[in-house]
Amino acid sequence: MVAVASERIHASYWLETGDDPAHAAEVIAGEQSSGTFLKLANETPELKERSGARVERLEVIDTSTAPSLPGGMAGSTYTRCQLELSWPLENLGPSLTNLMATVAGNLFELRQVSGLRITDLKLPPAFAAAYPGPAFGITGTRRLSGVAQGPLIGTIIKPSVGLSPEQTAEQVRLLIDGGIDFIKDDELQADGPHCPFDERVRAVMRVVNDGAEALGRKPMVAFNITGDLDQMRHRHDLVLELGGTCVMASLNAIGLVGLIELRRHSSLPIHGHRAGWGWLSRCPALGWDYGPWQQIQRLAGADHLHVNGLANKFSEPDDSVIAAARAVLKPMFDGAPMAAMPVFSSGQTGKQAPGTFAALGTADLIHAAGGGIFGHPGGVAAGVTAFRQAWDAAMAGTPLQDHAVKHAELRQALEFW
Amino acid sequence: MVAVASERIHASYWLETGDDPAHAAEVIAGEQSSGTFLKLANETPELKERSGARVERLEVIDTSTAPSLPGGMAGSTYTRCQLELSWPLENLGPSLTNLMATVAGNLFELRQVSGLRITDLKLPPAFAAAYPGPAFGITGTRRLSGVAQGPLIGTIIKPSVGLSPEQTAEQVRLLIDGGIDFIKDDELQADGPHCPFDERVRAVMRVVNDGAEALGRKPMVAFNITGDLDQMRHRHDLVLELGGTCVMASLNAIGLVGLIELRRHSSLPIHGHRAGWGWLSRCPALGWDYGPWQQIQRLAGADHLHVNGLANKFSEPDDSVIAAARAVLKPMFDGAPMAAMPVFSSGQTGKQAPGTFAALGTADLIHAAGGGIFGHPGGVAAGVTAFRQAWDAAMAGTPLQDHAVKHAELRQALEFW
Repeated sequence: MVAVASERIHASYWLETGDDPAHAAEVIAGEQSSGTFLKLANETPELKERSGARVERLEVIDTSTAPSLPGGMAGSTYTRCQLELSWPLENLGPSLTNLMATVAGNLFELRQVSGLRITDLKLPPAFAAAYPGPAFGITGTRRLSGVAQGPLIGTIIKPSVGLSPEQTAEQVRLLIDGGIDFIKDDELQADGPHCPFDERVRAVMRVVNDGAEALGRKPMVAFNITGDLDQMRHRHDLVLELGGTCVMASLNAIGLVGLIELRRHSSLPIHGHRAGWGWLSRCPALGWDYGPWQQIQRLAGADHLHVNGLANKFSEPDDSVIAAARAVLKPMFDGAPMAAMPVFSSGQTGKQAPGTFAALGTADLIHAAGGGIFGHPGGVAAGVTAFRQAWDAAMAGTPLQDHAVKHAELRQALEFW
Repeated sequence: MVAVASERIHASYWLETGDDPAHAAEVIAGEQSSGTFLKLANETPELKERSGARVERLEVIDTSTAPSLPGGMAGSTYTRCQLELSWPLENLGPSLTNLMATVAGNLFELRQVSGLRITDLKLPPAFAAAYPGPAFGITGTRRLSGVAQGPLIGTIIKPSVGLSPEQTAEQVRLLIDGGIDFIKDDELQADGPHCPFDERVRAVMRVVNDGAEALGRKPMVAFNITGDLDQMRHRHDLVLELGGTCVMASLNAIGLVGLIELRRHSSLPIHGHRAGWGWLSRCPALGWDYGPWQQIQRLAGADHLHVNGLANKFSEPDDSVIAAARAVLKPMFDGAPMAAMPVFSSGQTGKQAPGTFAALGTADLIHAAGGGIFGHPGGVAAGVTAFRQAWDAAMAGTPLQDHAVKHAELRQALEFW
């Protein structure tokens, strides 16, 4: 076998350790490559040089007197660092599943670790050759929805679960009559016996197709096809057959193989829901930053990715939301940007439009509101109009109050948002 | 649509909240079923009765003055509770992926939550009808490996990554000559360019088949087939064609759809690696207990499930390891036990045999040691023999030191274990 110049995979972490940080870093690198806790005869220097993970960077941030997580080795002090490791691509090849086991495998459990969070990934171009990325992304989503500029003004079918197919279609009719661009199923509504997927799609697509004829553009509905693979394929095919333009899946529920296979099969944009993101991220000393997680999902083929929203009803702070959205928009590879469309939701109204636009400098996004639309005293159409007016103001740099002077729906909305 | 008596899905949680616990419980139940933050006209009492999640149990454990996780609502005190919720099966049907989005979806991010961990699942029999569970489990694994009683004495190819196919086969030959029952690839070794899967399997299976002829039983090798779905299917087929008896996958890397599809395709036991378990579990106030996680993996079809090991080199305490192993062995449904085989590994030697057997009362398990076998001064065969002698002693209730009097390999081993 001929040695070749190695492309390398880089992953960065926030590390906290009760050990000497340099030693802890070496243990992590060893655990995730060629190291064992007992020195073996065949663990040669050549093998380690070729296959070992490397500590590329280790910068101390600060120290703490108590460990963030239990179970690690005790220290007199716990050092927090930025750690960057690299692996030769030869260890695993450009495989997303094996990337997961390598950069986010057994290392979080090590005794040397009292806190570990993956914060960044840099992948060699071989990954861009091996995986397709989003098939539609921003451009394809704008084309299919007929929204050439500004955000897609969106909403979520509510109540999350409990409506019949016909009741769902009625709600969709109200929204389409009101001028909505984008509607999604709730992640709790897939194919429950009370609201079977096929019946729901048939009922909803009758309304969507009627609406499209009247409007000259087709509002995009993301049908939640989350399920086993054959179910997802069947549901995708039905949506496509009936003229639908988007399918949605809960990415942490189906897993990477589910998304990769869905991308292979799909002729429609894939709306990636991040339900469960809390258990990947809510402890600051453990788990995943959104940056590396969304890179993997984009490579695998997600066209839209949820990023929560400013002033959301959840526990995520605004700077984290904006960092997530920027990550989703950031090009991944030279010549293969694979940008996806960030989806803002959770307690959103037009009031979040100025801050969202100011932070991103683009309206290449989906902004979904529920109560922010349905709660408008003038009804759903007024709610959608007000939300769009808020975005017009945001993009023009006009304060909402000023814009509201000549826009009645926005004026009314500002009283309840 | 006719209302039918509802089968319900139950999930239990450890909850910490700065809110009134009863209110927090209702918010979680609402978020994960029919609730919205704005009351909608179509959110009728009938709908809530039919589709709402129910708080079945809420028991205060204790209180804390500080929140475990940041971002939640502030309280003067933080109450920790056991919370049990239930959902009507009609909301989602017996779908594992949608179960994930329901019991482990957006709830962890709620502001009402300063800690949330899923601790138990009780699923209605419809899930046992919808999913097959392990195809081989304990009985099938014993049959294929020719190990009628006692644990499968196992080991892991080390170094984790870096050996060529021929070097891997050499190590396998040494182990089989030494009398090993079970060998697994490391989770870092799948199909890297330096050690391509097909070449490795061909080289290793030549050795395994030769060994089987000599032994009259075939040692089981779990080849790591983790990859995209078509790759996993191809690799499975090659292992099967060459007479192999087990395939391994990193479950958190492939995800649920990957495992479900692999189970559908596979004619071999599926060795379920839990790499990444740390980021699901290491923060006590967040994420997953092993109990509910392994239930989902067993339903989807895992035959073997990693549970770490007593006195392991990681950060998990012994009681957690034993609880995990007991969970894997516990029958899931009346008439459909779906028991899988627990796999003990990480810094293991024969010294952990007595404690492991005493805690479980069974040797229906795989016990894998690396250094504990390779480090034996008498060589690999002596290492395997000593490990087996330790288990013989454990199962007979004889202290290792006593058993060592008449067993030289164990006697030597006790000096370095």
